[in-house]
Parts: sequence; structure tokens; C-alpha cells
Amino acid sequence: MTRTLQSSARSALLEVRAHAPLVQCLTNAVVTNFTANVLLALGAAPAMTDLPGEAGPFARIAGGVLVNLGTPHAEQRTAMLEAVAAADEARVPWVLDPVAIGALPIRTELAHALRERRPTIIRGNASELLALAGDGAGGRGVDATDDVEAALPSARTLAARTGAVVAVSGPVDAITDGERVIRIGNGTPLLTRVTGGGCALGAVMAAFAAVDSDRLQAAASAVLVYTVAAELAAARSAGPGSFAVAFLDALAALTPEQLDERAVIA
Amino acid sequence: MTRTLQSSARSALLEVRAHAPLVQCLTNAVVTNFTANVLLALGAAPAMTDLPGEAGPFARIAGGVLVNLGTPHAEQRTAMLEAVAAADEARVPWVLDPVAIGALPIRTELAHALRERRPTIIRGNASELLALAGDGAGGRGVDATDDVEAALPSARTLAARTGAVVAVSGPVDAITDGERVIRIGNGTPLLTRVTGGGCALGAVMAAFAAVDSDRLQAAASAVLVYTVAAELAAARSAGPGSFAVAFLDALAALTPEQLDERAVIA
Amino acid sequence: MTRTLQSSARSALLEVRAHAPLVQCLTNAVVTNFTANVLLALGAAPAMTDLPGEAGPFARIAGGVLVNLGTPHAEQRTAMLEAVAAADEARVPWVLDPVAIGALPIRTELAHALRERRPTIIRGNASELLALAGDGAGGRGVDATDDVEAALPSARTLAARTGAVVAVSGPVDAITDGERVIRIGNGTPLLTRVTGGGCALGAVMAAFAAVDSDRLQAAASAVLVYTVAAELAAARSAGPGSFAVAFLDALAALTPEQLDERAVIA
Repeated sequence: MTRTLQSSARSALLEVRAHAPLVQCLTNAVVTNFTANVLLALGAAPAMTDLPGEAGPFARIAGGVLVNLGTPHAEQRTAMLEAVAAADEARVPWVLDPVAIGALPIRTELAHALRERRPTIIRGNASELLALAGDGAGGRGVDATDDVEAALPSARTLAARTGAVVAVSGPVDAITDGERVIRIGNGTPLLTRVTGGGCALGAVMAAFAAVDSDRLQAAASAVLVYTVAAELAAARSAGPGSFAVAFLDALAALTPEQLDERAVIA
Repeated sequence: MTRTLQSSARSALLEVRAHAPLVQCLTNAVVTNFTANVLLALGAAPAMTDLPGEAGPFARIAGGVLVNLGTPHAEQRTAMLEAVAAADEARVPWVLDPVAIGALPIRTELAHALRERRPTIIRGNASELLALAGDGAGGRGVDATDDVEAALPSARTLAARTGAVVAVSGPVDAITDGERVIRIGNGTPLLTRVTGGGCALGAVMAAFAAVDSDRLQAAASAVLVYTVAAELAAARSAGPGSFAVAFLDALAALTPEQLDERAVIA
Repeated sequence: MTRTLQSSARSALLEVRAHAPLVQCLTNAVVTNFTANVLLALGAAPAMTDLPGEAGPFARIAGGVLVNLGTPHAEQRTAMLEAVAAADEARVPWVLDPVAIGALPIRTELAHALRERRPTIIRGNASELLALAGDGAGGRGVDATDDVEAALPSARTLAARTGAVVAVSGPVDAITDGERVIRIGNGTPLLTRVTGGGCALGAVMAAFAAVDSDRLQAAASAVLVYTVAAELAAARSAGPGSFAVAFLDALAALTPEQLDERAVIA
């Protein structure tokens, strides 16, 4: 698995850089800028098209779509449903990030509706995924109050039920298609000290799903590339400000060799 | 006063880092990212929940709430009124930042309505606070055209009338509960060269109010921590770009000793 | 032409720093923060006032207005029409940036309506300007799929028809009033790796138009200042993250001598 995943992550990274897939992000107001910069650093082409009347047509020509529920205002909610319907029809992969669901009613209802629309990948922290699976009350805002391993049975059930690959973020990330589970131990706590540290990963998953039709592999490759770049950046940072800057530089400069040297996969 | 404030600022900083209070920000579209990163660097937990239907429920569980009027779109205005009512009912402290009121009609009317909803702290520049007190026409967009000391009598009256602590930003910041006045002389002009330099301070005040029930002390501690970190960052910066980065690093690394060494309090 | 443009760029830069013109930006959600920071670094005073009911009154007192169609939500579209009418009436210069028009219906219709409202400057990439001129289908999201020189005849026609100066961005930028054409060869590919690299230039054009009534000269001066600062920043960067930071520092520190030494004008 280890060698296979590293090899597919390398290929997917080079594919993204070569073809710059168009990644449509319907994401929260806090992280649009960082998310676009992460995609640009990676070599993808971001487009934050989240207007009703435009979100659907754009999803048809996108390589991948991200739907992130961080600040789902009324107009954006309409656009999300439109984008997802178009993506499904045009067989464009899409990623669902159910940010902070559980306690907050509007996004929780929306997340449950979107769960039935055949997402390609679902990502979140343990609390969010438990809440989406119907097995938990959600976390505290965007913070997980539950553990990755404890959430894994629910994540597998969620994957089996929805047909999506489910990726649970935490100190060790777990990615499952309901049967297989890949665990990736790379990363740095600094990713939790920069807003969008989790949200932008959803966009990277959409970029990788655009170039790799094996969705488990695509999700896991995205996690590996993202967290290895984060580790390299952490080593050159004096705090969360310089980390965010170094992370973009590291994503842009990441080599296949760095992926091989650093990957911690189980 | 000096020793007391430094000591309470030290305690509040350590409390924020230990307990990561949830700070709900209903703030303007320009500074959401920077504000969230400032709170994360400080050790608090930001949540930009500003949807009608979610803003109220979230305010009940938040440690503190910021209401910043920089870009108050219709949906956000509804959410602000909802959040403030819930915060007041649940006795959660909330901060009002009446950005650019005076000339601009919609936010001016909203600010005057919010002024009556028992804000815990009101912060702004001299022109904004004069306009909120009914004693001035407002500034030029977000720029103050009035002087801190000249605005102080109005700030005291505003504090007495609303029951809020009022903090006036400028080269020397003045914070008053209507009777006492604390002046803090720390800071750097670079804070005015980064967008959100003032707005994020409102969020930091909400974080400090979450851990310190003495609201004058909480507001002044926030100013002290914020402006001392800014001074340390300015010393390591080559311009406004590197300053914003160094500021986040400095907030995360700030020590009680640095607060003691640098505090300029009157 | 070369000496004239460098000299007017120098004067305009010093004017902006001396008078800090108020630049109102009705721009997309992804780049508000970066755009405001670019204007602050330059010495201008940004204000992102894009509410119906406030956008018009503010445009009357602004030095220049930017209308950027990157994420034109319903409320912002109303505000844009209001701002443009007020700017025209008060003879405040305004810049139109028709982001990603062509394939996307709502912004395309809006751009064609705005085209008739006497913009002072229109800027975009070759694909966007071809689409606005009615001679092309638009690009791929924000990416140009057409060439600057190939778009120049359409840009000249568009300038002649609308009375606007038209600026086409690319490896060599071309700026035309329909008759004269100025080409500027400065810049760096890193500007395309940071989101808002093009959008913020529109805001800088509005700032320069606020201090220089020769609109061709204002647009070309903005391009020169912007791209020379970008070159200086690229020389000090390790990737797109550090480039964005260094760019803000370089804009703030830019000297007339650096403009003279580096300008590549045809």
C-alpha cells in the first residue's frame, strides 16, 4: 500500500501541475483567499464560482468541485445544490466538507441533504463526520471534540451508505472507502493554527480527484501531498504567520523525492 | 494601575491560551481571514458564524462575540441582531465595532440600534466613536479624521450612557468605563498599513472579555497584548507584508516578560 | 513615450502617497483582503463599500472606484449599478474588471450593461476583453486562453466604442485608448500564482486615475508601478507565499529610481 500510494501521489501531483485542473470552490468566506492560493501553489486553477445561475454551468466544465459548509449563506446554499446536481450529471467529482455541523441547524440540514447527492469524497474532523453519520452531536464550532480512531466505524458506515470515500482529519488522518482504510501520519499542529488549514485540503482533494479516477487513492494522495508540504513548511517557520507563507512555497516546490522520504503511511 | 494592568494582561493571555475561548465574529468580508488567524495565533478559537438562524444559537455557546460593521450586508445585519439578543440573554460579552459610521446611512442606523443593546465593549477610532456618540459626522471611510484626546469626553459620555467600556484607537489608545481612563502608548503605524489592523483588535477584546469579567481590564489587556506584539513584529519587518506575517508569529510567541518590558501605560 | 510614462508614473506614485486617495472597491470575495493590502501598501485608502444604499453615496466621495465581477452576488450587483451611476454623475473615475465573462451568464450580462456606463478604464486578460468586445467566447474561468497581441484590435475597438482606456494583461501588458498603444514588458509569472494578482491591479488603476486625469497615462503608470514592484519581489521570493508578502513590502518601498532602472516600455 505504502509504495502504491506514494507512487500514485507522485503521479497525481505531476498531473495536476501539467494540466492545471479547474477546481470550483463553493467555500466559506473566511478561507476563499487561502484556498485559492493553495490551489495555485499546487498548480491547479481555482475558481470560486458560487452564484446561483453560474454555479451549475461552471460545475459541468470543472475538473472537480468543493462544497464547504463553513458560512453557507442563502444564495450560496442555492448555488451548492445547483453545482452538485450539475457535477453529478456531468460525472465531475465533488468533495463535501460539512464544517461545524451538529449544533448549527441550517448547515446540518444542508449537509444531510448533500450527503444523499452522491459526493465523491467527504472530509471533515471526527466530530463533523460523526454528526454527518448520525452518530454524534458535532464538535465545538470547527474544533473536533472526538477522536479519529473512535470515529472510524461511523466513517466506514458513512462511506458504505453514501458511496463516498470518507477522510477523517486528525493527528493521524484516516481515509476509507468503507472497506479499506489508509492512515497517514504526516502533518504538523501548525495546520490547526492557520484558518483554512483543513478547508483547503478539501480543495486539494477535488484537484486530485480531477486527475485520478480512483477516489480512495485521490483522497489519500491529497492528504499525503498536503501534510508533507506542511511538515516541510513547519521546519522553516517561526509561528503560524510564517508557516502559512512557507506552506504555499513548499506546496509549489514539493518534489516526488520529498514525498518518498517523508511519507508515513499505514 | 500600570502594575495591575500588566498583571491582568498576563493572566488573561495565559487564560486564553489555556482555555481557547470560542469567539464568534460577525465581521466584514475584508478581514475575516486575518481576524481568524489573529485569534488562532493568540490561542483562541474563532468561528465566523454569521447566518440568520445560526448566529443566535451559536452566540449562546460562545465565550465572546464580535459585531463589526465593515460590510454589513442584509443577511448579516439580521444575524447581528439575532446574535446580540442571544448574547445579552445568555450573558455572553459582546464587542461593537462601528466601522466607518457617520456618512454611510445603513451602518449608521444599525450602529445606533446596536448601541442600545448593551454592548460590553465598543471600540473604534475617534471619528467613529464621535459619530456613535452623536457628536461627530464620522471620518473618511475607515480613517479617523479626529483625535483620540478630543474624542475622550464623548467616549466617556457614551460609556456612561450605554454601560459599555469604550476604547478609542489611535497613536495612544484610550479605554474608559465612563469614569476611569487607561491610556496605552504601545503600537506601530504599521498596524494602519494592514487591513484589519483595527478590526482584529475587536476580536481580541471579545476573547479577553471571555476570560476576564472586569470589562475595562479585559479591553485594556487586549490592547496591551495586541500592541506589544505589533511592536515586536514591526522590529522584524521590512514593510506591511512581512509585518502582517511577523505579527501573527509574535502574538503566538508573546511572553509575559515581553509584556512587562514593553508596556507603556498611563 | 518611455521617458514621459516613467515620469508620470513617478509623479502619480508620489501623489498617491501624499494624498492617499479613497479607492472604493466592489470586488470579489476571494481578493478583498489582498486588494485592500495592496492599496494600503501603495499609500492609498481602500474602502470595500459594496452595499446597496451605501455604494452610491460612497462613490460620490471616492477618488476612484473599482468594479470587479469575480463573485457578483445579487446584492453586490445592485450596489455596482448604484456605484457606477453615482461615479459617473460625480465624475469620479471608475475601473471595470470583467472577470471570467464569456461562459458565465450572469456576469456576462452585467459586464455588457456596465460597458455602456462609461467606464474610465477597462482591464482584463485577453479572453475577457475579447468576450466583452463581443469577439470571443471568454477563457477558462479566470485564465486567459487568448493572446494579448491577438486581442489588441478588439481592445482598440472596445476603447473607441466605450470611450474607456482598455488594458490587456499578459506577459507584455498592452494599454490603449483606441488610438495610442503602450506596451509594458515588466512583471513576473508569480503574479499569476497568487490569487488577486490581476484583480488588485484594477484597484491600483483606480488609485492612479484618482490623481492623474490623463486616463491612458494613469492606467499605464499603474501597470508600471505594479509590475516593477512585482519583479523586485520575485527576486526576493522562494515561491508564491513569500512572493505575496514581498510584493506588499516592495510596493510600500518602491522608489522613483527603481521605476527608472527597470521600466520596459514600448
